[in-house]
Amino acid sequence: MGTPSLAADQILEALYWRYATKKFDPDKAIPNQTWQSLEQSLRLAPSSFGLQPWKFVVVRNSQLRQRLRAAAWDQSQVTEASHLVVLTIKTSVGPRDVDPYVNHMAEVRDTDRKNLEGLETMIKGFLKEPPYPLDPDAWSTRQVYIALGFFLYSAAMLGVDTCPMEGFDPDQVNELLGLTDQGYSAVVLCAAGYRSAADKYADMAKVRYETEDVVQYVD
Amino acid sequence: MGTPSLAADQILEALYWRYATKKFDPDKAIPNQTWQSLEQSLRLAPSSFGLQPWKFVVVRNSQLRQRLRAAAWDQSQVTEASHLVVLTIKTSVGPRDVDPYVNHMAEVRDTDRKNLEGLETMIKGFLKEPPYPLDPDAWSTRQVYIALGFFLYSAAMLGVDTCPMEGFDPDQVNELLGLTDQGYSAVVLCAAGYRSAADKYADMAKVRYETEDVVQYVD
Repeated sequence: MGTPSLAADQILEALYWRYATKKFDPDKAIPNQTWQSLEQSLRLAPSSFGLQPWKFVVVRNSQLRQRLRAAAWDQSQVTEASHLVVLTIKTSVGPRDVDPYVNHMAEVRDTDRKNLEGLETMIKGFLKEPPYPLDPDAWSTRQVYIALGFFLYSAAMLGVDTCPMEGFDPDQVNELLGLTDQGYSAVVLCAAGYRSAADKYADMAKVRYETEDVVQYVD
Repeated sequence: MGTPSLAADQILEALYWRYATKKFDPDKAIPNQTWQSLEQSLRLAPSSFGLQPWKFVVVRNSQLRQRLRAAAWDQSQVTEASHLVVLTIKTSVGPRDVDPYVNHMAEVRDTDRKNLEGLETMIKGFLKEPPYPLDPDAWSTRQVYIALGFFLYSAAMLGVDTCPMEGFDPDQVNELLGLTDQGYSAVVLCAAGYRSAADKYADMAKVRYETEDVVQYVD
């Protein structure tokens, strides 16, 4: 596989084009092939130790999306965008989550499980006695936000609009989706689809602090 | 500005090419124009309410990088990669951080400050009395992880290798960089540069759970 070499301006164009879409066009659906890439962007996102302490729930049931909207401050994006993803963490990640991961690694890399014992011991040791105070759910949530970043970014590159949403009642969302019993918990929602021509935010200038105010060089 | 329309396979190629680089080639530097795009990817990342509760510290001083390496479990990436970014949160973000943001918005969007009073009141209200328990530093840290995702992703698209690192002593890093007094705190490091030909991890298959194990459809 060759080294990617996109032009720098293609990237910046997509990042300027992206914005948190407030009004989606409810009649425009993301084509299946495009969606597959977005889904893979979630799956391929990196996470600490590669543990992937997450699940991504794509809600297609429209009644359920109505109820999720009620649990999310009535934000119209929840029901009007083509797709809605509920990004969840696996709750209380701990040493026992290392086994399926290392087993899967042995399979994917076609190596003997024994060759991975060092890695297994290292990750389990970290989770049992972290070298710094570690709240497993907060940690997993941070990893999910990397995946959120990957999803938003892929969408922008593919010309798909998105709106990440933190404003919702996690308990209600967990209950509506039966997540708690499965050992997962919703941490952020993301709508994806196409901006409505009526979204006045689409053409507003992006508001970012000046580079020199957020990037500091230490020479 | 036209709608971006990258091919889906270009994205997936870059995401498969990316991996957490363990050994960087210390002799290969990221060209300036490429670095500018990476830097802008951090700046253009989205954050809750657009507040940008962050600063990105690029450490070029090699003595300091040696000391940071000692504070980061002696990971060689800290000193051997072309660039090292310390991603930091603004600590204890609160209502007073809304003013500079809304002021900047008025300027960028060339609108009267008064037109933004509704937004200002809404964000301040959220920060004063969040509708759910909110730890400001944890919240800002999650936003920084979106920026981390954007940085890793842009790097992959541009053929630049990266390694995000959570393994470091934040107190030591904060002290080395004088961050605490400035009101910032290090949350994650990221090295960027080019993989060494000797990095055996470069050619290993990526380990991800199967799509059906991490993506769930609710119909």
